[in-house]
Amino acid sequence: MDEPRSRYLTWESSRVTPEQRERLLGQQGCVVWLTGLSGSGKSTISRLLERRLVDSGQLAYVLDGDNLRQGLNADLGFSPEDRAENIRRIGHVAGLLADAGLVAIAAFISPYREGRRCARRAAPAGRFVEVFLDVPVEVCEERDPKGLYRKARAGELSDFTGVQAPYEPPESPEVRIDTSTMTPEESVEHLLHALRERGFVPPDTAGGDRVTRTRR
Amino acid sequence: MDEPRSRYLTWESSRVTPEQRERLLGQQGCVVWLTGLSGSGKSTISRLLERRLVDSGQLAYVLDGDNLRQGLNADLGFSPEDRAENIRRIGHVAGLLADAGLVAIAAFISPYREGRRCARRAAPAGRFVEVFLDVPVEVCEERDPKGLYRKARAGELSDFTGVQAPYEPPESPEVRIDTSTMTPEESVEHLLHALRERGFVPPDTAGGDRVTRTRR
Repeated sequence: MDEPRSRYLTWESSRVTPEQRERLLGQQGCVVWLTGLSGSGKSTISRLLERRLVDSGQLAYVLDGDNLRQGLNADLGFSPEDRAENIRRIGHVAGLLADAGLVAIAAFISPYREGRRCARRAAPAGRFVEVFLDVPVEVCEERDPKGLYRKARAGELSDFTGVQAPYEPPESPEVRIDTSTMTPEESVEHLLHALRERGFVPPDTAGGDRVTRTRR
Repeated sequence: MDEPRSRYLTWESSRVTPEQRERLLGQQGCVVWLTGLSGSGKSTISRLLERRLVDSGQLAYVLDGDNLRQGLNADLGFSPEDRAENIRRIGHVAGLLADAGLVAIAAFISPYREGRRCARRAAPAGRFVEVFLDVPVEVCEERDPKGLYRKARAGELSDFTGVQAPYEPPESPEVRIDTSTMTPEESVEHLLHALRERGFVPPDTAGGDRVTRTRR
């Protein structure tokens, strides 16, 4: 801990094994990484997914960008370097949460493949679910829930993803959802199915009642 | 999330409440922050505490400095500024884990009061347990489990806490343990008692058997 020279660093594995955490929580820790343009539905879907998981007795936690910008990442601005560092740190925090056994839900534009690759590497092996909210930019711009596209078009924002700055779509995301054709509820159901299929959370059992009863 | 200008940031509270997390986990998320000289027993006690908690059905997670130095904090060196930043980030990550419902255990020399104050502020209000491993430096130096005091005395390390660099003892830690007069097991028992007393983890019930049975 806090050692003065890196040559003394050794990787100390937790004496509590991942299997013990799985037995305790009835789930496998993983990272659900939602990427997509502003207005693609990341925030809505991440909160709804967390809600559904917790309601059925699973431990999930949304990493919220705005909250992090006021805490861990309060020292970062919005230069390209700082944005990359923002995503790098979030990737590692999500990985820690997954290592602790949680379903860590991260919802960030994260426009660059390299940033998302970095997040995948920081997660426990095989426990990263990249979810691409694949929505046409026209739809996002029409929704414009925070008025950001309008500001970007008016020149009040620079480097806005989808307007002045590029978005690199994932090449082979684990899950792809078009929220212009699916409701938030349908999107989350689709996501839950993907998590169950991978064995990260238990199969749906009559609305999760059994799990809830034994866990509360 | 990932907004381009800080003026658009708003604190988005999780729609899952802390009370729901408490019901799910049967505990209150909190940060247990162990501070003390190198060799004071931080690592041993933190791992044993995690072990004991998980064995009795509670979800605990040790933030390990060496692991973090290879991930989230891999960009940091050992200058005074980087050490302060290391502790700052760890404080925020511990706070996030506690917010997610876990008993987050952080074991770091964290020699300066300001660093520990910063960690306290980053934790959910009233959920920070500062644990001072109050062991005479002579005892730590005699133990010298990693041979660091020897190297520091030989001039191979500079700014080593307790030799060339100061350690500011906590003025009013929630828990004080002298591991030169208590065994690791006794120390952890003392700590568990403090956590139960505050209601963060449930009372000891016949060795935690009941909890284990219903949660697994």
